[in-house]
Amino acid sequence: MMDIKSTTAELLDRVRKRVPLIHNITNFVVMNSSANILLAIGASPVMAHGLEEVEEMTSLADALVLNIGTIQKDWLEPMIRAAQTANAKGIPVVLDPVGAGATRMRTEAVNNIMNQSAVAVLRGNASEILSLGTVAVKTRGVDASEAMSDAVVNFAAQMARDRGCVVAISGPQDCITDGQRLFRVENGQPIMARVTGTGCGLTAVTAAFCAVADGALVEAVTAAFAFYGLCGDLAAKTGTGPGSFSAAFIDRLFSTGSEQVHAALRVKEVR
Amino acid sequence: MMDIKSTTAELLDRVRKRVPLIHNITNFVVMNSSANILLAIGASPVMAHGLEEVEEMTSLADALVLNIGTIQKDWLEPMIRAAQTANAKGIPVVLDPVGAGATRMRTEAVNNIMNQSAVAVLRGNASEILSLGTVAVKTRGVDASEAMSDAVVNFAAQMARDRGCVVAISGPQDCITDGQRLFRVENGQPIMARVTGTGCGLTAVTAAFCAVADGALVEAVTAAFAFYGLCGDLAAKTGTGPGSFSAAFIDRLFSTGSEQVHAALRVKEVR
Amino acid sequence: MMDIKSTTAELLDRVRKRVPLIHNITNFVVMNSSANILLAIGASPVMAHGLEEVEEMTSLADALVLNIGTIQKDWLEPMIRAAQTANAKGIPVVLDPVGAGATRMRTEAVNNIMNQSAVAVLRGNASEILSLGTVAVKTRGVDASEAMSDAVVNFAAQMARDRGCVVAISGPQDCITDGQRLFRVENGQPIMARVTGTGCGLTAVTAAFCAVADGALVEAVTAAFAFYGLCGDLAAKTGTGPGSFSAAFIDRLFSTGSEQVHAALRVKEVR
Repeated sequence: MMDIKSTTAELLDRVRKRVPLIHNITNFVVMNSSANILLAIGASPVMAHGLEEVEEMTSLADALVLNIGTIQKDWLEPMIRAAQTANAKGIPVVLDPVGAGATRMRTEAVNNIMNQSAVAVLRGNASEILSLGTVAVKTRGVDASEAMSDAVVNFAAQMARDRGCVVAISGPQDCITDGQRLFRVENGQPIMARVTGTGCGLTAVTAAFCAVADGALVEAVTAAFAFYGLCGDLAAKTGTGPGSFSAAFIDRLFSTGSEQVHAALRVKEVR
Repeated sequence: MMDIKSTTAELLDRVRKRVPLIHNITNFVVMNSSANILLAIGASPVMAHGLEEVEEMTSLADALVLNIGTIQKDWLEPMIRAAQTANAKGIPVVLDPVGAGATRMRTEAVNNIMNQSAVAVLRGNASEILSLGTVAVKTRGVDASEAMSDAVVNFAAQMARDRGCVVAISGPQDCITDGQRLFRVENGQPIMARVTGTGCGLTAVTAAFCAVADGALVEAVTAAFAFYGLCGDLAAKTGTGPGSFSAAFIDRLFSTGSEQVHAALRVKEVR
Repeated sequence: MMDIKSTTAELLDRVRKRVPLIHNITNFVVMNSSANILLAIGASPVMAHGLEEVEEMTSLADALVLNIGTIQKDWLEPMIRAAQTANAKGIPVVLDPVGAGATRMRTEAVNNIMNQSAVAVLRGNASEILSLGTVAVKTRGVDASEAMSDAVVNFAAQMARDRGCVVAISGPQDCITDGQRLFRVENGQPIMARVTGTGCGLTAVTAAFCAVADGALVEAVTAAFAFYGLCGDLAAKTGTGPGSFSAAFIDRLFSTGSEQVHAALRVKEVR
């Protein structure tokens, strides 16, 4: 097995060479930024949500992103149909439960999707992930945070085992688990939380890395998180605020390569 | 009573400390930019328009933004329900009548919202505001402008008294009135009109300032306008066009503090 | 007849002086970027898709953009109604068949629009344009490319004659034809394909140039393509990746003038 730095460099290289097509059914706020983030890393984004075309579009894709950030009732069926198409085709579905816990509609949407299709990766912040358990945790909007306590990590691992997926929690320290193995990523900067769509963009990048992973998804997800955070680290050196940071971050997603990955990735396999 | 500079510095400080949650039901063009503008000043944005969740989301929020910039028929009911929830909770509703006067649908949407809920602040350009009166004024799209004549100011003051709200008109010189008091703001730059969503972003910032105001809303709105224009003044010094200006503007919304507010705010209380 | 450089400079000047209102019914991904691109060149954008208002909005406009990038079933009727209004008023309709060929829904949407209204300009990449012929060509998402072979050019010319419109194909070398005359544009940079909405933005700029053209549309479209590519050439000199390129590109759309047009436009009239 390769170490995580080599895995990250390898998957990044594959994304740039294979240009995986990522089908996004995502929220209105981040459609533009997620497309730009995917283009910057070398993937090919397509956004499509029309009920009449989602299955056809997913059948052309290499991975599917579902993101409920501005969910409305009639978007749920296209999401589920796209996910089932992805399942049938054998490509990964990455789900971002934006704002789960904030409203009943969002929590139910996530549970609906997960009950009717196989989600490969669930990526959110601690509050969102916790809200999907039986212990009700009320979150506050979409950027709520919970200390990445042992309780949270154990909850994520249990959910990963129950659902048979990778659960990835973003926070000051990211935590990625498939229920057996557990990785922590320390790359990333506080300024990233000041740019909208940064979390959703990570979900999209995670889908691109999973699209080209032949091995364990838990490593592909960890690689995506670490690479993304590293680009944030590098961009934060030049930006003077979230506006200039945004542009620098896209530049870094485009230009960061194997050498920087080997020099500055900060990942620990905890168990 | 504090002077307006001190009020502005105080409200800015409160936004950064309290991180008010601003619920936006806004147009597709500016969802991303409004979120980034709110994050830059230290507020927390959430965008949600689904009929099934708007009331729940508004009940978590500290202020509500309604913006009709890409209105479609089925968005009106969620807007009104959210506004009524905000009224019941006692949090401010800030309404941006984008393109009112350009089409009957838009003018009617604004009147519908204002007749069925209590709007705290109405923010638009002169043509939009004038179109809401009985004297029909046809506007041209969304960026139309009218000289900020005495007639316009008197119209705004009358509307403020009739509706019991603050009316805030953006233009080369901004005008903010609650029907009794009248402020003029001279901060701001022409280049701001070359970046889409600048007006809508001001509406969002206005909501954030109102969310933390304990005193008169007319001062909170004036403070928001002046701070926003000041950040435009500072950003215009470095940008070489609307692309670089945009990034610099976000940076300034993030970094501008009390010292700059006291040094360069240009506000006059006219009556 | 003026040469194409003088035509470009003249049309650019007219856009900046007349500030044409461009009504866009476009996709969610690019609403913000298309608005910013139009503002940067000096035009006035409005985005509106509500069935109840599109005809009124088009009747105020100087050109109409239709873009099916995130088409959903209920957007088709507003698009067709707006196009018919534009036809009745005599203003140009510019259609961007994003992703045509990728799904049946998209191909049918384009054919529906073109059968029920008169489109002045069809702008897409080779795969999209080819998919509209009787020879079925399956495209891969929205950024697929086909070598700009003689077969493609001949296909475009035939379609232009059949439909009575200008067909404009973006690629490493752009090709613009009205079925009689054929122009090739060599301005433009590969980095532009790494920024989402660049093609859609070109469609919007094309509409603005056509809105102020009194002469042959094929020249106005060529002028728009050449100017847009030139701004890309100039922006690529300063950017270090797609993030900084984006800002520089908007700055160049804003500041590039007659002198640079005469110095660096690379257009050939092939026949």
